[in-house]
Amino acid sequence: MNKRVTLAERPTGLPTESTWTYDEVAIPELAEGEILVQTDYISLDPAMRGWLRDVRSYIPPVGIGEVMRSGSLGKVVKANNHFKFKVGDILVGGSGVQQYDVSNGKGYLKIEEGGRPITEYLGVLGMPGMTAYFGILEVGELKEGDVVVVSGGAGAVGSVVGQIAKIKGCKVVGIAGGKDKCNYLVKELRFDAAIDYKNDNIHAGLKEHCPKGIDVYFDNVGGEILDACLSRLALHARIVICGAISQYNATDKVVGPSNYMSLLVNRASMKGMVVFDYADKYHIAREEMTKWLNEGKLKSQIDIYEGIENFNKTLLRLFTGDKQGKLVMKLSE
Amino acid sequence: MNKRVTLAERPTGLPTESTWTYDEVAIPELAEGEILVQTDYISLDPAMRGWLRDVRSYIPPVGIGEVMRSGSLGKVVKANNHFKFKVGDILVGGSGVQQYDVSNGKGYLKIEEGGRPITEYLGVLGMPGMTAYFGILEVGELKEGDVVVVSGGAGAVGSVVGQIAKIKGCKVVGIAGGKDKCNYLVKELRFDAAIDYKNDNIHAGLKEHCPKGIDVYFDNVGGEILDACLSRLALHARIVICGAISQYNATDKVVGPSNYMSLLVNRASMKGMVVFDYADKYHIAREEMTKWLNEGKLKSQIDIYEGIENFNKTLLRLFTGDKQGKLVMKLSE
Repeated sequence: MNKRVTLAERPTGLPTESTWTYDEVAIPELAEGEILVQTDYISLDPAMRGWLRDVRSYIPPVGIGEVMRSGSLGKVVKANNHFKFKVGDILVGGSGVQQYDVSNGKGYLKIEEGGRPITEYLGVLGMPGMTAYFGILEVGELKEGDVVVVSGGAGAVGSVVGQIAKIKGCKVVGIAGGKDKCNYLVKELRFDAAIDYKNDNIHAGLKEHCPKGIDVYFDNVGGEILDACLSRLALHARIVICGAISQYNATDKVVGPSNYMSLLVNRASMKGMVVFDYADKYHIAREEMTKWLNEGKLKSQIDIYEGIENFNKTLLRLFTGDKQGKLVMKLSE
Repeated sequence: MNKRVTLAERPTGLPTESTWTYDEVAIPELAEGEILVQTDYISLDPAMRGWLRDVRSYIPPVGIGEVMRSGSLGKVVKANNHFKFKVGDILVGGSGVQQYDVSNGKGYLKIEEGGRPITEYLGVLGMPGMTAYFGILEVGELKEGDVVVVSGGAGAVGSVVGQIAKIKGCKVVGIAGGKDKCNYLVKELRFDAAIDYKNDNIHAGLKEHCPKGIDVYFDNVGGEILDACLSRLALHARIVICGAISQYNATDKVVGPSNYMSLLVNRASMKGMVVFDYADKYHIAREEMTKWLNEGKLKSQIDIYEGIENFNKTLLRLFTGDKQGKLVMKLSE
């Protein structure tokens, strides 16, 4: 049997239990050329909130009654003459929130042995890591010596953004919620400074740590933190718009950045990105990041929760920040 | 005697008569190396509102008691051994809102005979024209076939932006206030379409005229028009932030673009510009634009008002839109 989570109704504000249907269905027989993938882990990402919205976006929304979309890591447990995958292969892909996926293999990629823990393929070597790598290096046009600020600094993307910027010789200031996360950024990840948005004054923190302004701001959160960073841009600054988690559950209109005219004053730019555009080059990023991981220059944290029935409350940890690093659920029992 | 307008107090909202002091002072003797410039015309520009604000910007604010800053066109009426300028030279520069300026020549440029009416050096061949040229071609990275939308389309900058985009083989949609301006854009300037923001639904107009989305949006106005354009971006669209006239007199917080996450969905960018950065290349733009003017490919309109005592009410025409093309005042009597 296949336990799964489907979309019952579109949420207003934060998803609740009534957003989902938890059910169990029989696993169908495999047709010729299909595989059965057992989902061991799913990735919980802020983007999932966006996939629930019935609006034009970079990907269609999840339909009512459909299995909730998610990144996943699993293994092939059955194969019916598949052209590429065989039983035992470890695959990353998008099974969605269910324990088993019958698939023709589309969207799945076999993990080649690189000596790293496989769960890193949902985090630092997966979408969040790819987002960080291409976002800061290509979209942010990072240069040695830049002053870099990253919000969601202790998150799956932000923590990698900051560490890559450190590797590239930049000054890095992370913004995160709570003292523990801020300590982690400075002591473990060697960020130059961290601002605790729950307890510190963000404007004062940015002024202290970026006295000459911000060269690159990597934005995962939007809202007042984006506005505060806009007000401290250096000339020719680049803002990478990667997410806006503070606004994803807004029931009112999204709050736009009222300081956006700072882009004019500072001849600065604000640019959006979607990681899928860089799929052709993921292998380059994975290779370089695996090297950094093996050398100890890059660290990653994974926070794993169990039990598919806990899906909604685990998902909410993304929005409350009540997690340490990359948020993952283990679905296999 | 020198009639002038100085800043009496910083306005909240729209400037009023009490923002200014109108006075008359004696013209001092020239020191060695100085010139006396008679200001024939001054340029009235939206940026002037920004110069009244006591905030960090790309240029210091006008000080209380100082002559109001403005672009100007005038002639040298006296010279005391100036190293470059002589009596009779026609100069563009920044005399400010006064009939005479004693200067060492800094900030003034002599107009070389190009066969064009000299007042064009305040408009299409002056700052507004330079802003349009470098804004659309360099910041907007214009390409043949692009769908271009320009707000303030009948204004000094917007009208030139649209015409340059037409010359470069683009589809151009102008946004302007009122039927007369919209007719002017389509019939005189050969824009492909115009949307009358005072009477038409902007969203519907953009949908009709840009069914495949906007490649370049040149923003002079901010506010809800910026938001509407954000909601119709094509993939890899570029937004040029040139001004935000709808917000310049805001007494509340500036309204930020709540649809800015469209930058992410469409992998688009929003970039600010300040024309002074292109000063080294003005001569290239002037040469090309003079050619276009002489060939009839580029048209410009100037709306001239007289009498320095009418400064405030003429300035307000920028914000009400009650003008035709480039707004200029004649100060010489």
